[in-house]
Amino acid sequence: MYIIAVYDINTETREGRRALNKIFKLMKKYLIHIQKSVFEGELTKAQFQKMKLEVMQIIDPDCDSVIYFSSRDSRWLDKEVHGLGKDTTDNFI
Amino acid sequence: MYIIAVYDINTETREGRRALNKIFKLMKKYLIHIQKSVFEGELTKAQFQKMKLEVMQIIDPDCDSVIYFSSRDSRWLDKEVHGLGKDTTDNFI
Repeated sequence: MYIIAVYDINTETREGRRALNKIFKLMKKYLIHIQKSVFEGELTKAQFQKMKLEVMQIIDPDCDSVIYFSSRDSRWLDKEVHGLGKDTTDNFI
Repeated sequence: MYIIAVYDINTETREGRRALNKIFKLMKKYLIHIQKSVFEGELTKAQFQKMKLEVMQIIDPDCDSVIYFSSRDSRWLDKEVHGLGKDTTDNFI
């Protein structure tokens, strides 16, 4: 499965700032960091399930948001990068 | 086409903060705002082309980043929301 993960973590509290760091490190274990709070990459269903569970243990569902887009085949998704990061992650998935 | 747009605008300068507001307003004309700097929605090719051109006129490609994921058919994409926004935009595309 091809996964795109985007998150918005409330950093008004110390716990929130800690959660942000944890989420970043966690997602870097599974996916490729392509923009501030955006990751993408290929995962098996089991890996995706495991990552989601670990993320759920970190975030505060009342003030944080994580959205996953998944596609069974990366060929069904086109990607375009404008501006920074254009060279490194341009147009190939 | 189903579009997911994510952006990271450098707000260290006044121009950058202005660009951020302009990008937000612009994308709201075309897409649905689902998270801090994340939009999604259905566009025709022509609408998508037009939006991208307008965005390019606003961002500074040397310090801002906009990434578009597009899928010809929204059914090829699953979406999961964890935490905030779970009720409003959950699981349907």
